[in-house]
Amino acid sequence: MRAYEVISKKRDGQGLSPEEIDFFVSGFTKGEIPDYQMASLLMAIFLRGMNEEETFSLTLSMLRSGEKLDLSDIPGKKVDKHSTGGVGDKVSLVLAPAVAAAGAIVPMISGRGLGHTGGTLDKLESIPGFRTQLSIEEFKENLSRIGVSIIGQTPELVPADAKIYALRDVTATVDSIPLIASSIMSKKLVADLDALVLDVKLGRGAVFDQEEKAFQLARSLIRIGSRLGKRVVALVTDMDQPLGRMVGNSLEVKETIDLLQGGGPEDLREITIDLGAWMLLSVQEAKSIDEGRRRIEGVLGNGEALNKFKEMVEAQGGGLKAIDNPELLPWAKLRIEVKAQSRGYIGSLDAKKIGQAVVALGGGRKDLSSRIDHSVGIELIKKEGEKVEEGESLAFIYASEEDKGEEAQLLVQNAYQFSEEPPERSPLVHYLVTEGGVKSVSLQGAVSPQDLTGEA
Amino acid sequence: MRAYEVISKKRDGQGLSPEEIDFFVSGFTKGEIPDYQMASLLMAIFLRGMNEEETFSLTLSMLRSGEKLDLSDIPGKKVDKHSTGGVGDKVSLVLAPAVAAAGAIVPMISGRGLGHTGGTLDKLESIPGFRTQLSIEEFKENLSRIGVSIIGQTPELVPADAKIYALRDVTATVDSIPLIASSIMSKKLVADLDALVLDVKLGRGAVFDQEEKAFQLARSLIRIGSRLGKRVVALVTDMDQPLGRMVGNSLEVKETIDLLQGGGPEDLREITIDLGAWMLLSVQEAKSIDEGRRRIEGVLGNGEALNKFKEMVEAQGGGLKAIDNPELLPWAKLRIEVKAQSRGYIGSLDAKKIGQAVVALGGGRKDLSSRIDHSVGIELIKKEGEKVEEGESLAFIYASEEDKGEEAQLLVQNAYQFSEEPPERSPLVHYLVTEGGVKSVSLQGAVSPQDLTGEA
Repeated sequence: MRAYEVISKKRDGQGLSPEEIDFFVSGFTKGEIPDYQMASLLMAIFLRGMNEEETFSLTLSMLRSGEKLDLSDIPGKKVDKHSTGGVGDKVSLVLAPAVAAAGAIVPMISGRGLGHTGGTLDKLESIPGFRTQLSIEEFKENLSRIGVSIIGQTPELVPADAKIYALRDVTATVDSIPLIASSIMSKKLVADLDALVLDVKLGRGAVFDQEEKAFQLARSLIRIGSRLGKRVVALVTDMDQPLGRMVGNSLEVKETIDLLQGGGPEDLREITIDLGAWMLLSVQEAKSIDEGRRRIEGVLGNGEALNKFKEMVEAQGGGLKAIDNPELLPWAKLRIEVKAQSRGYIGSLDAKKIGQAVVALGGGRKDLSSRIDHSVGIELIKKEGEKVEEGESLAFIYASEEDKGEEAQLLVQNAYQFSEEPPERSPLVHYLVTEGGVKSVSLQGAVSPQDLTGEA
Repeated sequence: MRAYEVISKKRDGQGLSPEEIDFFVSGFTKGEIPDYQMASLLMAIFLRGMNEEETFSLTLSMLRSGEKLDLSDIPGKKVDKHSTGGVGDKVSLVLAPAVAAAGAIVPMISGRGLGHTGGTLDKLESIPGFRTQLSIEEFKENLSRIGVSIIGQTPELVPADAKIYALRDVTATVDSIPLIASSIMSKKLVADLDALVLDVKLGRGAVFDQEEKAFQLARSLIRIGSRLGKRVVALVTDMDQPLGRMVGNSLEVKETIDLLQGGGPEDLREITIDLGAWMLLSVQEAKSIDEGRRRIEGVLGNGEALNKFKEMVEAQGGGLKAIDNPELLPWAKLRIEVKAQSRGYIGSLDAKKIGQAVVALGGGRKDLSSRIDHSVGIELIKKEGEKVEEGESLAFIYASEEDKGEEAQLLVQNAYQFSEEPPERSPLVHYLVTEGGVKSVSLQGAVSPQDLTGEA
């Protein structure tokens, strides 16, 4: 078999066999197939696509490219959540300890922010001392003792994904369903999970702003999971405006702590409870979505989720002082007000522009090599549907440098659109996708365990 | 401007501006844009195509990537020929000295063989001592003194083409009209030509076996030339069966000498005279195709072409002994007969299989790094339309190793198809393509100088 022939086949729109895919992925991982041949294949995949069978084979080959995590000696069901990336999306920071407090094991392998969307690891690293690069042994020990740990990819696990992702990022081949699906599933399923709940973002601030693309990805992820005997369910959730009121690393940790203390903004709270309920249901730690919700609400209300979070922070080297006193988190010195230039209702608040403003401040990555300023961010005083008078505060920008602050101010001002009438409130969760198909749901809609099996 | 954005645009099927193309080509040539980004762009070009404007810009950017040859101090019109590659195609070896003997300057920058098609440089290097890597100064001096020189690409001229071609060769992006056209035209036109005659091969043994593809390439080449003020005309010629009776490097030099001595096989002789006539016509060294033909026939008959060839060989370090006694050319020790297994007519003789047999013998390149055995090859005793008795010789294989000889024997046997009736003889030259369009021609068909301007 030759790399050239595999590229030609895909270039001509033919399907690749599992052997061909494995030959290419393992050859590339070992450095036997050069970057330029993989780049050429990736573009051919981008433009010609891959069917379900090929996408599954690609995931398997990537999973096989490194070590496999064995968590069988840790009692309890393992479940994780993956989000396709949003603005202000600090859900994982709350969800992982909350679900662990409710009785499941959460071995979360997470990613960094890129472009206008933030990353869980960057947010956690705002906490002084917090380490996201643990060894496999430490990770397992923490899971065993606390039930939760959030780490970055390690060189031992799925090395093919890290290498392929870095190449996609510079060859304009990121936005391809089979490549996204195999990347997500190999990265997540290597952690020996029983189930996975996906939060597929839809809207202006998401990778996908078309429903059909979001469904395609959700279906692809679910099918890969099901062929590997893993329960996978996806919620398609709103990313037109940012989640919560804080965007930027330290700021989002502060909002995380608010939520763990029983407070926090309503949208963030609702989506966390909903995703948590699905996580518990999918590993039979709850018998219904309603029971799942009550369990998550319980641990958020009684301090158990916060305690679990503190245990995790401490186990990963983070200082607890900043958790007890969030003002000790790195916080940029400049505070710039963005004022309403007219009166009315906030008709829309563009999540992408807010994300880009955070990147402009230095709080996000333009490319994989950028360094992050954890102290900068944006506090959204007004969100969609809220009434505002002329001259009132819309948002505050926390900046380290004046010129960057001014650039962000312009972007934030443009992110707000006004309307005379209050806009229709769009639901936070749009759809539930299971093996059985796509189902339109409202956040409080009745869903049953049958949804998980596709029998509903 | 960023490489990423240029790739994305082409990936999404958009046209690239001259500035974007130039940014990419010059960045890649200087090593500022890495191989993997060029590989990704090449696959996007392969699958999305390029319009006339983009193909022209790409050619210009490649031409600008290195030094330009200035032949203005050499008196006389400069004309060259390019063939898209065939089996047994030693036309350049005869044509270049013949046209020079007839009064034009022939600065020929030629290529090596790849896959089943042979290359002019490899053939010339069968002549002991012959150097194809001359400096620009030597090349110019030879042109000035003799009127003809055949060399390989030098690092100074069109470095972008060499670098891009090497990458296309390993990323399955060779067979793309805009990439082929820009490669040919930049490589040829850098030699300060007044006119160029193209021999676009069509048939089983050619890159293109569909007429439409051959026309597309011919049109693309002609338009690039015409925008640069160069006269370009293309003949679409037959490559169903090999040209002449000798295939393989030394063997083809021997047949070249036969032709230069006024002999040689009829098909090779006819196509050489026809292409030569077009070359002379296109630089006004002949007033009609018929006059051009007579001029070429003249220099082949009176020894002037042979003398010019010897002058060129001597100027490039080659020994004349092997020209006077072709048995001194490297010649493989094993001679294997291929016999007819039935009687009848040769219905077809597959040029591609013959080319592959030469590669199997070691006389061609599997990839760009292969070394060539100049001594091996195939002598075709029978060709299409010829009558044969059972047991008669079809061909002789000259091999250096027995197992390779046996592999070739099988391929040659399979290349011959028999028929009961004599097959219809297909014309050697199928079409003439000029700016004015495509015209079906027979080899002896009447064509006038108007064909060159598209007025006919």
